[in-house]
Amino acid sequence: MDERLKRQMEFALEIDKEKNVFRQTHLSGHGRNENDAEHAWHMAIMAYLLKEYSNESVDISRVMIMCLIHDIVEIDAGDTYAYDSEGLITQKAREDAAKERIFSLLPEDQKAELIALFDEFEENKTAEAKFAHAMDNLQPLMLNNSNGGADWREHGVTKDQVYGRQSKTREGSEKLFELTDRIIRQHIESGNIKE
Amino acid sequence: MDERLKRQMEFALEIDKEKNVFRQTHLSGHGRNENDAEHAWHMAIMAYLLKEYSNESVDISRVMIMCLIHDIVEIDAGDTYAYDSEGLITQKAREDAAKERIFSLLPEDQKAELIALFDEFEENKTAEAKFAHAMDNLQPLMLNNSNGGADWREHGVTKDQVYGRQSKTREGSEKLFELTDRIIRQHIESGNIKE
Repeated sequence: MDERLKRQMEFALEIDKEKNVFRQTHLSGHGRNENDAEHAWHMAIMAYLLKEYSNESVDISRVMIMCLIHDIVEIDAGDTYAYDSEGLITQKAREDAAKERIFSLLPEDQKAELIALFDEFEENKTAEAKFAHAMDNLQPLMLNNSNGGADWREHGVTKDQVYGRQSKTREGSEKLFELTDRIIRQHIESGNIKE
Repeated sequence: MDERLKRQMEFALEIDKEKNVFRQTHLSGHGRNENDAEHAWHMAIMAYLLKEYSNESVDISRVMIMCLIHDIVEIDAGDTYAYDSEGLITQKAREDAAKERIFSLLPEDQKAELIALFDEFEENKTAEAKFAHAMDNLQPLMLNNSNGGADWREHGVTKDQVYGRQSKTREGSEKLFELTDRIIRQHIESGNIKE
């Protein structure tokens, strides 16, 4: 096998490990914890289906690949819960080291391309990154809502924490933020999110 | 919430169930069985990374969405193992019913769009469908190879069965079929695939 294909296949095999990185979110039907690969798959399909609600027009293939790879660094760095303030402090350094190790498995040109997409998502400035972020928020919100807000209750999450994270959705989609806001308000009312 | 968005969100929630459809393939590192959502995620990233090996040039966003949705019908129809000859007889009828039920959750235009993509994959005539099929074969082959061919041994799979399925990869990518063929020959030699 030539060197280029060998490196591409090594990367493809390495990212299989993302299926063992579990998140705090639970599957619908009060299921088990979701893993990063499942979350990314779900986000990419939702991005495709909901693209009409993006504030700005987007190149959907860039949004999809961004969704698919945005958590690859968690293979080394682990999942940091959105409301884990201690974990969030060390998250950047852990994820930077992982990014360098994992994407370096690829041929140089693809390493550069995927790191650029990964960084674009993180920087959250382009239309594609903002819409991908909206999916990163909406997908677990949808699952948690379907489970009666159990993930928020379990972690004692507050209104300020939820809005702190979910308000980013507005930058990607006003329309999907309206939906988000309606769901959050219902869960504050019923006590699943603390005032 | 307006009717259109409501239907899109109902579909988005429904497909969460794909994470509970388990396949015969095992994760690398002799892990647990893989589920359909993980498999689809993996295929879509591999399609993006390996697109240079497609026999014909492809619209990668169409390949990716095809990969992401190609197993959705298994939410109702279950996974039919590639070498389960009895299951394969009833597979089409089970999957047709599932296709109608699940995609009907969507607004009419998106139902038509996703069914067209799903059917295009199944018919395997376009460049995009052929390359997506190559991924559908290569991804589990890669995992099984990393596990020393354990899935083939467990099911007593024969050379003819493996080539019967994997030879489709050639229609999508001569280059990736060369790799596939090399892997299969190694496993025949070491007795993991029966002559």
